[in-house]
Amino acid sequence: MLDYKLLEALATVMECGGFERAGEALGLSQSAVSQRIRALEIRLGQPVLVRHPTLAPTPAGQRLLNHLQQVRLLERDLSTALPTLETASPRLRIALNADSLVTWWATAIGDYCRQAGALLDLVIEDQDVGLKRLRDGDVAACLCANPQPIAGARCIPLGRMTYLPLATPDYIDRHFPDGPGEAAFRHAPAIIYGPHDQLQHRFLARCGYHGPFPYHLCPSSEGFLRLARAGLGYGMIPRMQVEERLATGELASVAPGEVLEVPLYWHFWRHSGSLLAGLTTQLEAVELS
Amino acid sequence: MLDYKLLEALATVMECGGFERAGEALGLSQSAVSQRIRALEIRLGQPVLVRHPTLAPTPAGQRLLNHLQQVRLLERDLSTALPTLETASPRLRIALNADSLVTWWATAIGDYCRQAGALLDLVIEDQDVGLKRLRDGDVAACLCANPQPIAGARCIPLGRMTYLPLATPDYIDRHFPDGPGEAAFRHAPAIIYGPHDQLQHRFLARCGYHGPFPYHLCPSSEGFLRLARAGLGYGMIPRMQVEERLATGELASVAPGEVLEVPLYWHFWRHSGSLLAGLTTQLEAVELS
Repeated sequence: MLDYKLLEALATVMECGGFERAGEALGLSQSAVSQRIRALEIRLGQPVLVRHPTLAPTPAGQRLLNHLQQVRLLERDLSTALPTLETASPRLRIALNADSLVTWWATAIGDYCRQAGALLDLVIEDQDVGLKRLRDGDVAACLCANPQPIAGARCIPLGRMTYLPLATPDYIDRHFPDGPGEAAFRHAPAIIYGPHDQLQHRFLARCGYHGPFPYHLCPSSEGFLRLARAGLGYGMIPRMQVEERLATGELASVAPGEVLEVPLYWHFWRHSGSLLAGLTTQLEAVELS
Repeated sequence: MLDYKLLEALATVMECGGFERAGEALGLSQSAVSQRIRALEIRLGQPVLVRHPTLAPTPAGQRLLNHLQQVRLLERDLSTALPTLETASPRLRIALNADSLVTWWATAIGDYCRQAGALLDLVIEDQDVGLKRLRDGDVAACLCANPQPIAGARCIPLGRMTYLPLATPDYIDRHFPDGPGEAAFRHAPAIIYGPHDQLQHRFLARCGYHGPFPYHLCPSSEGFLRLARAGLGYGMIPRMQVEERLATGELASVAPGEVLEVPLYWHFWRHSGSLLAGLTTQLEAVELS
């Protein structure tokens, strides 16, 4: 049997981002935490974490963290059956796309998590990295646009989010005086979430434009919207995020009628207890738009 | 003299996140991009990038990127004096804290960047990582809470952002029926931005509480606010972000009268041309609260 104190020390070092803070959280000295990590590495015969360039688990350490999270989720079910056990509520580690987090996510799962006493550990990742984290066991579930299921996990379609190419009316007057077209697309600054964000490219391709274009990079959904509202550029924004601003006319489409739809899928470990199953039931009831 | 075509190939590979997309952006084949990177590595006698675990510049590659950005900024000034040169607008790479990006940042710099035709490449980092990026030359400027100047950079104080410990009134009724105190702090779920976020700990220490507490982790300013609004927890939120929600009573303080103030400093390279100098003038005029 594994010594779960050692695994918990590893998990706490990762959660707290360091040995000293992990010691504080566990009520141990920093050197006691180090000793537990070393004991784990001796038992395993290889390192469980690296300190450089940033503190991170090794692949073996990640497997242990994955295992610990599954055990914690199962313990939670056990303590529902045997309430006097009083196990601590496990933190549910979930990777999700930034746009869901700033729109429908909290409303959809809020009541359930509150009633279940679930604590969340959210990680923002684009789809491929999120699924890799699920495969590596770093997260228990992943919300993303990729429908490809992972071995050992289930995958459920949740619907589609609609994106519109939006800017302020003033910006549209300046950069799109003749509507969408090559001349405008070549010179109008766009906003892109990051190097892997393909929504802007997909939008331009639909409009028949394949050339270069100037753009700002802003890896924050809300920051992205703020740049658009400040008239710095136009960009693909979820309709759900700006319903009111479209109604008041603060933002408008640079190409009325053009929309992009992005499907969302919920990937989650099988056999991980009732907390994840309950959360999944909540998500299945969501109506995206 | 350096061959700047090679440096531009390196910069484009990093910006686009890959060789194929860099080729598309530069109008070159993928193998022509690889050849340029190889030529740069031969000239330098060492690698300029690594492909695993993720595509990233080596320290030497980072120095080259830094140098290229400085040259681009200086070229921009030259093209203002000699407009027929028609150099492309450089992208200004800036590290900043997430809370500034979702509150005052875009409004403060919007007009200036639009008029100057500046494109932004924003990177969200907490203070120490942001300053490290400035020291490494990965960003041209950094907005953070750390007043410690970096060699070669100037540092200007911009004022303070005020944080309040906020939750929904319903949450406060449930978890703080007798006001703030040890019993409430021990059991009420908090929300924390990430392992390095010390605001919640500082708030609790001010209230005289030093014990453990349950918390959600949410590394998104807007997502953080959404979790609080959904009643999942309480957390330290910038007053600027929620002025309206405080007025309507949607959110309220769990410890009325308790505030934390976080100073902000603008660090930027000296001698990097008028674009950064102009942006700095805009930021000096900001009135935080």
